[in-house]
Amino acid sequence: MLKRKDLLGLKDITAEEMEEILSTTVQMRKILDQNVKKTPHLQGKSVTTLFYENSTRTRTSFETAAKIMGANTTSISAQTSSVTKGETLIDTGKNLDALLTDVIIMRHSMSGAPHLLAKNVKASVINAGDGMNEHPTQALLDIYTMKEKFGDIKGLKVVIAGDVKHSRVARSNIWGLRKLGAEVTVCAPKTLLPAGIEETDVSVSTDLDDCIAGANVVMGLRLQLERQQAGLFPSAAEYNAYYGLNAARLNKADGDAILMHPGPVNRGLEIGSDIADCEQSYILRQVTNGVAVRMAVLFLLTRAKQQ
Amino acid sequence: MLKRKDLLGLKDITAEEMEEILSTTVQMRKILDQNVKKTPHLQGKSVTTLFYENSTRTRTSFETAAKIMGANTTSISAQTSSVTKGETLIDTGKNLDALLTDVIIMRHSMSGAPHLLAKNVKASVINAGDGMNEHPTQALLDIYTMKEKFGDIKGLKVVIAGDVKHSRVARSNIWGLRKLGAEVTVCAPKTLLPAGIEETDVSVSTDLDDCIAGANVVMGLRLQLERQQAGLFPSAAEYNAYYGLNAARLNKADGDAILMHPGPVNRGLEIGSDIADCEQSYILRQVTNGVAVRMAVLFLLTRAKQQ
Amino acid sequence: MLKRKDLLGLKDITAEEMEEILSTTVQMRKILDQNVKKTPHLQGKSVTTLFYENSTRTRTSFETAAKIMGANTTSISAQTSSVTKGETLIDTGKNLDALLTDVIIMRHSMSGAPHLLAKNVKASVINAGDGMNEHPTQALLDIYTMKEKFGDIKGLKVVIAGDVKHSRVARSNIWGLRKLGAEVTVCAPKTLLPAGIEETDVSVSTDLDDCIAGANVVMGLRLQLERQQAGLFPSAAEYNAYYGLNAARLNKADGDAILMHPGPVNRGLEIGSDIADCEQSYILRQVTNGVAVRMAVLFLLTRAKQQ
Repeated sequence: MLKRKDLLGLKDITAEEMEEILSTTVQMRKILDQNVKKTPHLQGKSVTTLFYENSTRTRTSFETAAKIMGANTTSISAQTSSVTKGETLIDTGKNLDALLTDVIIMRHSMSGAPHLLAKNVKASVINAGDGMNEHPTQALLDIYTMKEKFGDIKGLKVVIAGDVKHSRVARSNIWGLRKLGAEVTVCAPKTLLPAGIEETDVSVSTDLDDCIAGANVVMGLRLQLERQQAGLFPSAAEYNAYYGLNAARLNKADGDAILMHPGPVNRGLEIGSDIADCEQSYILRQVTNGVAVRMAVLFLLTRAKQQ
Repeated sequence: MLKRKDLLGLKDITAEEMEEILSTTVQMRKILDQNVKKTPHLQGKSVTTLFYENSTRTRTSFETAAKIMGANTTSISAQTSSVTKGETLIDTGKNLDALLTDVIIMRHSMSGAPHLLAKNVKASVINAGDGMNEHPTQALLDIYTMKEKFGDIKGLKVVIAGDVKHSRVARSNIWGLRKLGAEVTVCAPKTLLPAGIEETDVSVSTDLDDCIAGANVVMGLRLQLERQQAGLFPSAAEYNAYYGLNAARLNKADGDAILMHPGPVNRGLEIGSDIADCEQSYILRQVTNGVAVRMAVLFLLTRAKQQ
Repeated sequence: MLKRKDLLGLKDITAEEMEEILSTTVQMRKILDQNVKKTPHLQGKSVTTLFYENSTRTRTSFETAAKIMGANTTSISAQTSSVTKGETLIDTGKNLDALLTDVIIMRHSMSGAPHLLAKNVKASVINAGDGMNEHPTQALLDIYTMKEKFGDIKGLKVVIAGDVKHSRVARSNIWGLRKLGAEVTVCAPKTLLPAGIEETDVSVSTDLDDCIAGANVVMGLRLQLERQQAGLFPSAAEYNAYYGLNAARLNKADGDAILMHPGPVNRGLEIGSDIADCEQSYILRQVTNGVAVRMAVLFLLTRAKQQ
C-alpha cells in the first residue's frame, strides 16, 4: 500500500506504487461518469495550490479533483502571495502547515523546488511541474490513458515527438513508461534533444517518419515559440514540415495507434488540425483521466498520512 | 418544460420559456429569505465562470447562486487562462467539457462568442454578456423585479434611458419585455441610439422629460465615460442635465413607478444621488433577485440536460 | 453573550467580550486538531473578503476558518472589483448586502474604512486591518496564544519591539492587552514611535536590551524596508544591531518567555534566523491559533445577528 507523504516525480517511485495509483484511478474514473460527481474521500481536508507559474489548466484539474472529493481548496499564486514580500519558500511552506493545509500542490519554474518544500513541511506535496524536471501526475494520466486503451503498458511502443529537451512531461513519462516495460523512442531535432539522452535506455531518433512506424502511442509535445527566437529551430513552417504530427505520419503508426498531447495544442505547429480532433486523438480523454488520476493521488497520499 | 441546453439571449427564447424561468425564480427567491441559504439542487455539478472581461459583480452573483445550490465552482479569467497561450475558444471549451464542467458562464467583449462556444461544447452555456448583443440573465432579473412589483408585465410602460446604443442590457430587455407584452420606450441622445432602432417595435425618444410621463418603470443605463472622449456626448454635466434621472423627472412618471439600473451606478451622471436610494429605487432589490434568477436558470438548464 | 454586529477594533470592545471570544476559540481550536476539520456552524452563510490591500496570508486564514465551518466564501480584491469602475465604498457594501453576504471581512489602507462600511451595511463587518489603526483578530490570536501558554494575561510583561508607529497590530494589542491587565512596553527608535505614546498607559523605551529584561512575551513587528527610504532608520544593519531580536537578547527575557511575530518575518532584519525557529518561537502556533480565533469571531457575530 502506498505509504509516501509526497509525490515528487516518477523517478523515485516503484512500479508497484504506480500500479496502485493506476488501479485506484479506475475507481475514481467511475465516479466521474456518475450524474452526481461527489465523494466524501477528502471531507475536512484542506488542499492548497501554490503556483509560481501560471497554469489555469493544471490548477483547475487539481482543484476539480479536490472539490469532487469534498476538500476545501485554496489557491495561492506567486503574484499575490507574501512571496513578493520576501518570504522564503520554506517559511511559506511552514505557514501553510500552520494554516492546517493537508496537501500542497506546487508548480515552480525551478527544478527541485517541490523537493525542498516537501522536506520542510508536514503537508503532502504534489509536484505539478518543476522546471524541466518532472510533472508526475501528467505522466500518470498519460500512462493511465494508454493502459485504459491497451490493457497493459508492457511492450507498448511509445514515440514521444517534439521538444524533449525542455519537457518535464517527457521526462516523467520516460521514467514511468520504462518502469512499466514500454519501449520509448524520443524524436526531435538535435537542438531539442537533451544532452546525454543516448546513454539512457530510450531510443533516440531525429527522423519522425522513420521512428513512428508501428508505434502504438504517438505523443506530441508542446513547442514553445520562444525556442525559435533562441535559435533552436529555424521556423514554425520548417518545424511543422519535419516534426509536425499529421494524418500522413499517423498512418505510418500501428493501425490501432492513439495520438496524445499534454495540451494546450498549437494547431498547425506540432499537431495538424486534421488529426487533433480525429478518432485516434485521445487528447481530451487525457484531460478527463487527469482529474481521476489526481483524485487517486490526493486520496492515497492523505490516507497514507493518517496511518 | 424548459428543454434547452444553453441560455444565450432573450431573442431566441419563447414567452413560455421565460415564464417558466420566472416562476422557478419565485421558489428560489424563498430560499434566499431563509436563515440557512442552502439547497442540494446542483450537488455534484461543476460550474465554471469564463470571463474575458472583468465583472466581479456579475461573476459573484452567478457564483453565489451556484454555491447556494451546492455546485463546485471554478473561475477562469482571460488574464490567467491558457487563452493567453494561444488556445482557440473552441479548444478552451472542449477542455472544460473534458474537465467535466456542467455549465459554462461566459462573458466576452465580442458579440456571438457564447453562441460559438455553445455549438461546440456539451456543457450548458449561459451568456453573461457578449459585446453589445445580449445579457439575458440581467434582463430576466429586471423582468422578474417588475413582475414581483406589478404582478404582470403585459401593458407595463417601461422607459429605458441612457446609452442604449452600447447596451446589451437594453437589447435583452427589449427582446424580453416585448415578448411579454410591455410597451417599451428607449430614450437617449441620437448619438447613443442604435442605428435602425426606429424600425423595431419600441418607441424612440430623445426627450426624457416627455417620454417619462406616466411610465411604470424607469430604467437607467450605465454611461461609460469613455463615450465622451469618443465625442458621443459633450460633457458629463450636459448629459446629466438632459438625460440624468432625478427626483423632478421621476415625479413625472406614474405615482407607483419604480426606478431600476443594472449597476454599478454613476451617481450624479445618469442617476442623481437624491433618488438612487429612494423608496422607489429597486436597484438593490434587482441585485438580490439576480441571485434567484441565476439559481433558476442554473437549475433548469442542468435539469434539462439530464432528461 | 456577545451581541455586536461587527468587530472593528479592540478599542471599542469590553474585556468580557474578549473573554467570550477567547473561550469560544478554545472550542474551535479542538476542531482544528481533529482528523476531519469540519463543522456546520456557518452552513448556508456567505462570507466575503473585501481586500483593498493584498494579503494572501490573512485572507487565507479567514477563508480557511469560514470554509471549515461550511460557509460559502467569495473573494473580492480592489484590482478586479467594480471599485475600479468608480463605485463608492458604501455602494459596494450595499451591493454585497443585496448579494446576501452575511459577513464582510475588510482590509483597507485607510483607517476607519471598515467603520464607515459597518455603519452602512446589514452584514457583519470584521476589520482585517485598516491603515495604521487596528487589526483586531491579529491581536486576539496573539492574546489567545499568550493565554494558552501562561493561563492568564493579567500581570504578563509584554514587550512589543519594532515599528510601533506604523503598526495596527501593535495598536490592537495595546488596547486588548491593557484591558486584560498585561503590562505593555513598546520599544523602538524614536522615529518609529507614534506621537503621544508617552501619554498612554504603556511604558516606552528606546533601549531593547534594557526593557526586554524579565519579559514574558517578546513580540517583534514587521519592519517595512520602505521606511528606510523615508529616513526613519539609517540602515538595515544598524536597525538589526540595535533593535533586532536575537538569541542574546531573548536570553535576557524571562526563562519561560515566548517569541511572537505577526509574520511574514524578515529574517536577519527584525528577527535573527537563529531564534525564528527556536523552541521559544510561537510564530507558527500564532498562525494556527489565528484560524481558531477567526472561527470563533465568525461564529459569534453570525449567531448574534440571528438573535
